Order: sequence, then C-alpha cells, then structure tokens
Amino acid sequence: MRAGPSQEEVRRHNLGTLLRYVHVHGATSRAELTSRLGLNRSTIGALTADLTTAGLVTEAAPRETGRAGRPSLVVRPESSRVFAYALSIEVDRLRAARVGLGGRILDRREAHRPRGMQVLDAVQPLAGFVREMRADVPDDARYVGTGVAVAGMVRRVDGMVRLAPTIGWVEEPVGAALRTELGDEARGRLTMGNHADVSALVEHSRGAAAGCDNVIYLYGDVGVGAGIIADGRRVAGHGGYGGEVGHMVVNPYGRECSCGSRGCWETEIGEYALLKHAGRAEQSGRGAVLDVVEAAMRGDSQAQFAVRQVGEWIGFGVGNLVNIFNPEAVIFGGTLRDVYLVAAAQIRSRLTAIALPACREHIRLRTPELGNDAALIGAAELAFEHLLEDPLIN
Amino acid sequence: MRAGPSQEEVRRHNLGTLLRYVHVHGATSRAELTSRLGLNRSTIGALTADLTTAGLVTEAAPRETGRAGRPSLVVRPESSRVFAYALSIEVDRLRAARVGLGGRILDRREAHRPRGMQVLDAVQPLAGFVREMRADVPDDARYVGTGVAVAGMVRRVDGMVRLAPTIGWVEEPVGAALRTELGDEARGRLTMGNHADVSALVEHSRGAAAGCDNVIYLYGDVGVGAGIIADGRRVAGHGGYGGEVGHMVVNPYGRECSCGSRGCWETEIGEYALLKHAGRAEQSGRGAVLDVVEAAMRGDSQAQFAVRQVGEWIGFGVGNLVNIFNPEAVIFGGTLRDVYLVAAAQIRSRLTAIALPACREHIRLRTPELGNDAALIGAAELAFEHLLEDPLIN
Repeated sequence: MRAGPSQEEVRRHNLGTLLRYVHVHGATSRAELTSRLGLNRSTIGALTADLTTAGLVTEAAPRETGRAGRPSLVVRPESSRVFAYALSIEVDRLRAARVGLGGRILDRREAHRPRGMQVLDAVQPLAGFVREMRADVPDDARYVGTGVAVAGMVRRVDGMVRLAPTIGWVEEPVGAALRTELGDEARGRLTMGNHADVSALVEHSRGAAAGCDNVIYLYGDVGVGAGIIADGRRVAGHGGYGGEVGHMVVNPYGRECSCGSRGCWETEIGEYALLKHAGRAEQSGRGAVLDVVEAAMRGDSQAQFAVRQVGEWIGFGVGNLVNIFNPEAVIFGGTLRDVYLVAAAQIRSRLTAIALPACREHIRLRTPELGNDAALIGAAELAFEHLLEDPLIN
Repeated sequence: MRAGPSQEEVRRHNLGTLLRYVHVHGATSRAELTSRLGLNRSTIGALTADLTTAGLVTEAAPRETGRAGRPSLVVRPESSRVFAYALSIEVDRLRAARVGLGGRILDRREAHRPRGMQVLDAVQPLAGFVREMRADVPDDARYVGTGVAVAGMVRRVDGMVRLAPTIGWVEEPVGAALRTELGDEARGRLTMGNHADVSALVEHSRGAAAGCDNVIYLYGDVGVGAGIIADGRRVAGHGGYGGEVGHMVVNPYGRECSCGSRGCWETEIGEYALLKHAGRAEQSGRGAVLDVVEAAMRGDSQAQFAVRQVGEWIGFGVGNLVNIFNPEAVIFGGTLRDVYLVAAAQIRSRLTAIALPACREHIRLRTPELGNDAALIGAAELAFEHLLEDPLIN
C-alpha cells in the first residue's frame, strides 16, 4: 500500500509512458500521443523534447499527411542508436542479437547447440557473438543492457538456472558464467528470464495477442512451457517460476517425466510423444516434428494418428488452463505451432468439451506473429525495461 | 498505457490509500500512517481531516502510550456508522450481514437453503433479512452499497449467474431479481462476485495470507472453487470467470462431472467423493463430511481410507496449481479445511512429488483465519471498493 507519487515521479512516469508507447507502437504523431496518453499538447511537447535531448527519440515532419493545416510532428524511437544485446539459450541452438529500441533486430548470430552441452561451452560462443556484433556498433550508439532468455527456470536476481530439464541443467550459475565471459561492454546490466515468459510478453505487447489482457502463450519443443498474462501482467509467482504448465499432470497413469513425476502434460504433447506415436522415436528436433506434420498433411496414416493423439492432449491441457485463467487468447509457439496447424479442429473440440462455456467464450486460438524472433526481442525487453521505467536513468 | 495522474487524482488516491489502510489494519496512529504510507506528517494530517469531515474515520488520543512526549493521534475507521450489506448464496444456506467499514460484522442472519431452491425463493428471504437489519440501523449511519457472494460463476456487470452447478442454477438473472426484491435502501450499488474469489481477497488482505502476494485459496463443498491472487491481484480472467480449478481435469478416466466433462478435480475431492469412499454415498452436507473426518481421527478404517483417497487427489491438484502459479500460500477452506486437518502430511507428500522444487519452495499450507465470515466480509468488500477507490464519492 503506497501513497501517491511526487511531481518528479509523475514526470518520470510520463516520460516512461511516452517512450514505452513509441517503443511498442513505432513512429507516432504528437497528436496521437496527446490523445492516447491523455496529456495535453504542451506536456507532450515538453516530454518529447526531454527524450530527444536524451537521444532516445527523434522528431520529424511526416512525409505526407493528405490533410490541410500544419502536420503534427512524428516521434520515432532511436532504434539505430539505442540498443540492447539479446541472448537466447534453447534446446538445440544458441542465438544472439543486437536489438534497437522499438524492438528492431539490427544484427544477429546463431549456432547449433548439441544436446548435453555444458554451461561454459554454451556461454563462450554467446560471448563471442557479442564481441563480433560489437565491432559494427556505431560510435555514438548507446548500450542499454543485455537480456538473456533461457528455456528453463531462472532466478531473476542472479541468473541462476534452477532447472532446465530439456537443456539438462540443474542449479547452474549461468548468469555468473555470462558475466565472466562477456566483455566489459556487455557485462553490466545483465537480466535473465524464461524463454516462454519473455516471448509471451512480446506477443502480448506487439504480436498475436496485442490488445488482449489475458493470454496464455504456450511454447513446445522437447518440453512445454508457458508465459501467462493475467490482466495485462505476467503471472510470475513468488520466485518468478510460475507458468510451468508442462508439469501439470494430465495423465496420472502416464509416462515418467524428466522432472521425476509421471504423466506431466509435456510427456503427452512434447516432441518425444509426437515422434513416438509416429513410429519415429529414434528421431528428435524441430525438423523431425515438421516431417511428421507434413506426412500427416500428405495423408500418412501413422503420422495422422500421432498428430491426433497429441492434438487430443493439447486440447485437454488447454481446456484445464482455460478453466483456470479464462483467457482471451491462447498462442501456440514452437513445435506446438506446427501441430496446431494440422490439429486445430481437434484441439478446439477437446478444449470445448473440457472448458466451461463462460471460461471459453470469446477465446481465440492463434499462432505467434513474431515467430522465433519473440525470444530475442523479449530478451531485449528485459534490458529495455530499466530504461522504460526511468528514461533519464544512466 | 496511461499517463501520470493530476494533483487532484493524487489527493484522491492518497485519501483512498489512507482509508484502505485503516479499513484493513484497524486503528492506526498518525505516526505509523506517516511511515507506512511514505507521506509527510502534514499531508497525513490534512488527509485524516478530510476523511473525518466526510464521516469515514475518527481521531482520538490513544489510551496509553507508555512513552514520553505528546502521543500520536489514532485514526479509526467509522465501523458503526459506515456500512455495507453483505449477502451470501451458498449450497446449503443463505446468509446476510451488515458489515461496518473495517470489516466488522455488525449484524447477521442465516437460513437453511434446501438443495434445488429456485432463484426467487432464495432472493426473497435475503431481501427480508436486509429489511430486518435495516430496522436497527442508526439514523446517522451511511449505507455504502450491497455486495453479494454466490457459489458460482457471476457476470460482474449485471449479476447474471452464468453457472452454479452445485446450486443448480444456469444463466439465472440473480442480480436483477435482487434489485427487484431489495427495498430502495439497498437496491442501488449492488455488486456481485464469486464466493471463493471474495473469500480469497479477504484472507489475502486481513487473514491467513496477509502479507503474501501469491495465494491460492481453495474452497470445497459439493464442488471446488478457487480465488487466486497473483502479485497481489486477483486472477480474474477476461470475463471474471477465472479460478475454476474444480473443473481442471485430473483423472481422464474418472467419473462424470456435473459440468458435463469427466474426471474434474471436484469429482475426486468434493463432498460426494469423500462420502462415497467412506461408504456413506447417501449422505450429504458439511455435517456428513465432518462425521467422516471425526471417524477417521477415531480410527475408523473406512473413513481413513476415504480421507487418504481424497487427500491424495487434493495434493495432486494442488501440485499442478503450484507448478502453474508458484504461490507462497495455499489456503484450504470449506470442507477442504476439515480434510486438510487430517490429511495434511499426505497432501504435502503428494504435492512434493508433483510440484517442481523451485515452484514449491517457501510454500505454506494453511487453513483460513476468517472461516465462514470470509465470504460475508468479502461480499461487503465488493461494496466498500467503490468508497476506497474514491472516498469523497457520494
């Protein structure tokens, strides 16, 4: 319970609100900012002047208005000058990007990650990517911070990876290892988060769930995770570990899970389940999943059986989550996207059978708009967040 | 995305914050308010003066301080003068109360509700209770509003009960019926909510989960519902229907549920499951549940079997919810409280097997502090909320 803000806090809040608006929505006229933010014209003018001085936005006349009268200046985020590094540690690959304010990917690198790779072996190539990208950064550009998305449960305060069963890491100090390996230029301001969580936030702010306040973003590969947004905010939980829907037990008589429990949702809808039902248990990876989906579309009966089985269980678990969260949108990312595209009718039918009518009314099932870029842009958001909270911070 | 508040909005926000503080915490000295709310002494003085003038709080010297110097004035909510009516429609009873600011129950009524009772037959006795209580209200007292808790899914905007399977109502216009039956004195400002949701908010603000930001409040009778708090706020969902954990399917091979699905959590842990396992399927009601729990404590082996079976499934479902929400506290209300008291070790053991270590660390399992009063105080909170948002509103 906290009392109201001071005038200075109000100003910083307004600066952050304006900067966040153009960061998310891109170039916006002063007139639109005035109406969207509910501030008067002179306040908008003063705020954009402050942000321009700070090198965070630029103002320019619009190219064409088609209307009479003096056109309203357009405010743009300084995407090419203000940037964050974004790193992503995934089951089968390591990715890095330089992301400009406004969520624009300016540069990127990627390497294969063999299963079983240890922390240090993963951290070194990521640090190498940052050094490579650093070489092309203009002298006047401003580094804001580095964000890291990990396909596992991450302790935000120090970047300890508590559990990433699909990567094979338990209680690994990834944050500390990154701080050691990264050069001075990217060592400070390192923030880490869960892959599905940061992807969810990006799909919510500027992707498939823009405008929806209650969203379940599911991401599947070997395992299944979720980023959940309730009333516009991430459901983080006490330690930030919320959203582990892959370990919701759906089948008490099901298979053992890598977490030690039995019948977890991911044992029924993850990569292995699909490949096993398709008679391809010896295969693995996104490519193998896509092969099954394509075979199903071509009419291969065993592939169709596999997709049906997994589709049933997807609908089943989504139905449970819909009863718990009453969301407007469910987004299927990773390999779940591919399965969803061939099993949508079945997923919806099972969902309808399990979810209560009031909980599922108005629901939209969707695929991601930002695809695999969501994790990189989302990782960068972790770094931008400090700046958006207080744009005049150093 | 909204810009910062005006000075007048800041003042109203501060008034609401101060009033909410004494509403939740009771009598508080000005000195403590100054430190808790982070405002200076003169601001606190001005705010309490405004609230005193509005008849919402009183100020008086403390009885004894035991310290030297002039004692800080103590601010108290005007519990006897500012009140709401609270109504609660439950499976087996109808309740009404007059609740003073500060959450004090000033008067109360209760009637048995036979299963199968129709909406109009339930609404009339509730309206009668309000008329009875109205007769004792002092002339200078101020009516704030009426709040109604229903053991079902309620559309907040108009009080339509979408689904209350345990009460037997589907798409019943309970809000409209109440507005018709209630006298002029309680017709306006009628707000309705779900029984578990409002109970959760009260246990969170002033009960067993005070100080916890991530809470799952479970309530069991015939069915099972939950009020879920994430980061200090209720997980309501798009239409306000979130928290239907009783219809999370836990046993795909389980019994048919009243909702039309199969193997819902409430089919495994609700009243009927316990009584059936205990060989008492022909009984029903809270008394019958208590009889089984007492028999189990006395050593009756069939009752112990029943409690064990239900305890297993309670731990199972709570484990799922812990993976999804990473809460600090889980509270067992209604009949689940009684089962929890004899099956705590078993519930915890199953929970531990299912929930991931990071998701369950720091978790506390608790029984409610406010017991059955939570629903009444919580219903009143729905009415007080308007006042706390803007204490100078009429």
